[in-house]
Amino acid sequence: MTTPAEPYLLTPGPLTTAASTKAAMQRDWGSWDADFRAMTAQLRAALLQIAGDEHGEYDCVPLQGSGSYCVEAMLGSFVPRDGHALVLANGAYGKRIATTLRYLGRQHTVHDTGDYLPPRAADVERLLVANPDITHVVVVHCETSSGILNPIEEIAAVTAREGRRLLIDSMSAFGAVPLDVRTLPCDAFVSSANKCIEGVPGFGFVIAKKEVLNSAKGGSHSLALDIYDQWDVMNRTGQWRFTPPTHAVAAFIEALRLHALEGGQPGRLARYAHNRDVLVDGMHGLGFEPLLTEAWRSPIIVTFFSPADPAFDFTRFYELMKAQGFIIYPGKLTSVESFRIGCIGALDESVMRRVVAACGEALRSLGVASAAPAPVDLGAREALAA
Amino acid sequence: MTTPAEPYLLTPGPLTTAASTKAAMQRDWGSWDADFRAMTAQLRAALLQIAGDEHGEYDCVPLQGSGSYCVEAMLGSFVPRDGHALVLANGAYGKRIATTLRYLGRQHTVHDTGDYLPPRAADVERLLVANPDITHVVVVHCETSSGILNPIEEIAAVTAREGRRLLIDSMSAFGAVPLDVRTLPCDAFVSSANKCIEGVPGFGFVIAKKEVLNSAKGGSHSLALDIYDQWDVMNRTGQWRFTPPTHAVAAFIEALRLHALEGGQPGRLARYAHNRDVLVDGMHGLGFEPLLTEAWRSPIIVTFFSPADPAFDFTRFYELMKAQGFIIYPGKLTSVESFRIGCIGALDESVMRRVVAACGEALRSLGVASAAPAPVDLGAREALAA
Repeated sequence: MTTPAEPYLLTPGPLTTAASTKAAMQRDWGSWDADFRAMTAQLRAALLQIAGDEHGEYDCVPLQGSGSYCVEAMLGSFVPRDGHALVLANGAYGKRIATTLRYLGRQHTVHDTGDYLPPRAADVERLLVANPDITHVVVVHCETSSGILNPIEEIAAVTAREGRRLLIDSMSAFGAVPLDVRTLPCDAFVSSANKCIEGVPGFGFVIAKKEVLNSAKGGSHSLALDIYDQWDVMNRTGQWRFTPPTHAVAAFIEALRLHALEGGQPGRLARYAHNRDVLVDGMHGLGFEPLLTEAWRSPIIVTFFSPADPAFDFTRFYELMKAQGFIIYPGKLTSVESFRIGCIGALDESVMRRVVAACGEALRSLGVASAAPAPVDLGAREALAA
Repeated sequence: MTTPAEPYLLTPGPLTTAASTKAAMQRDWGSWDADFRAMTAQLRAALLQIAGDEHGEYDCVPLQGSGSYCVEAMLGSFVPRDGHALVLANGAYGKRIATTLRYLGRQHTVHDTGDYLPPRAADVERLLVANPDITHVVVVHCETSSGILNPIEEIAAVTAREGRRLLIDSMSAFGAVPLDVRTLPCDAFVSSANKCIEGVPGFGFVIAKKEVLNSAKGGSHSLALDIYDQWDVMNRTGQWRFTPPTHAVAAFIEALRLHALEGGQPGRLARYAHNRDVLVDGMHGLGFEPLLTEAWRSPIIVTFFSPADPAFDFTRFYELMKAQGFIIYPGKLTSVESFRIGCIGALDESVMRRVVAACGEALRSLGVASAAPAPVDLGAREALAA
């Protein structure tokens, strides 16, 4: 059993990118040169357009590093030292936001709905009314720990109604799941190059109201993560303050071209949602159960319960999948055995059908008679529907 | 006049990389997968070997982002909140260290020797003796603002003699200029992927004593830049805490292979030094004057005075060089008109001869009769020799 030369990545980023996106990295760029400055301007404008910023109210600030750097930059720059953030957590990325605020010494309250449940407007409203000193609400758009798509529209509405400010971690969602600043009021959101735009990792970006960016001057705990300073220097010089990941930027320009060719956010959403439906249907046919009910299941990544059959072993399952050309993802739930399969990247329904077939083959190799999960897990899942 | 498809980058990183280094980015890697974890382990081990860590006293912690992120991570993690850092500055990167310490709220004293002069042991000794509360000395190995190679050996010796700790920004030097922890006592140093190892930008690395890494637990101002946490998670899981720049890592593995093939640090130094000598000799033949006297001139980048002839215009000179296939670098001196030409990257003496020929051609196009600098500038330079 040999490993294919390049397996598909069924992971929520880094993901499988298009050949032309990778080919765009076959050149070195001088970061000071006008050609590269034009690429930086182009990517900022394209991202603002995807975000629906038709009135020039927002600006886009790319930042070197992983997406979590952008989350920290957003929190450190926009939640003032005397602010108080309400963190809506239902997985690892919500918890990371709380950890970041702890590092920053910012007062925060965590509303944790566990592994399966979304935050709801009524609960947020209750918390905001009870805590008038809360200045900011921070929410994860798609929490890839479970694959849940959080209802940011109702969260945005209640946050605005209560006169607080909204910050969104839209890392794995922006570019495919709708996030339009014309209809979704928020101070800022972040995403990264290697998610739904299908670039390679190396930088992320903060999209924020210009008024909010301006007010962040002098507030950052960090020079590297000072989003105001990055914005100010970029606007004055067209350059990134420090060495940019030039090849990742070049790849992103090509990825943006492919994104537009596919019909932008709606086109991408359609493909990812179809990928998910083909995957879930196929896995269901094998006896697997997804964690989440349909209402909350994102088109980004799907969590499946591990089979209760004692012949199932995730490490061996992973290796059997890899040998067939597919890298899957371990689970990240606190109390339930699970694994995850991503739907994003340069993948289409034919790939998803092969993923399902490979899962079936792996189960046969392991001698797993039934892919059904333990009843207790199903019970936990049902709690969600209530 | 057309621009060549891909100009050479005569810049101190991002730089021109080998074709095989770029070709290594033609694949997507899963960051959780064992194959990628093995690449991370390989790069850490290779860098420790280049640093001469034969006793396993140090460890290497790669970090997403630009090199300046690593500088901030080193300062924020290793200079304690009640510490006091002596910053030896003679250019933009020394000043950036002071700015970073200001963000971090760490007490610091700046010993600024200006644009031309290196810090010397006698001055550092005087400052350390006069300020017994100084805990750390921070020095830039090669200050690319001028191209000066600072005498870190004598700085390290006096710092150790006075019982203080040394932190080095070896961004543009490590891998070509000797920095061997067996003979150069230091707590830590940083460098980045896209300098003398000739990788692409996307991450840097901190090489630090394990004892120093251990003592940094809980000290960082930032989650993203917490070098202890990055080290701890990497040692426990083999993974980067947050999404790594997978393609830049793959390119770096190939760059390390080429570095070893060339004879490691001594081999690379020999080529860069020869590049510099061919460049300086050729430019001298055209009438250009380098800023620094030979003793302090690094093999990394050379600053030349701009010609005093009023027909010389840097922007036009830059465009004329670019049209001939060479991206050069503007000057970064505070008081003198200058420009810089780098000697690092996938360049050899034949390229350097073509650079010189292109400079001559550009001067002719501009109608510059003499490349000689203004006398006042030469006077400033002579101060260095004193």
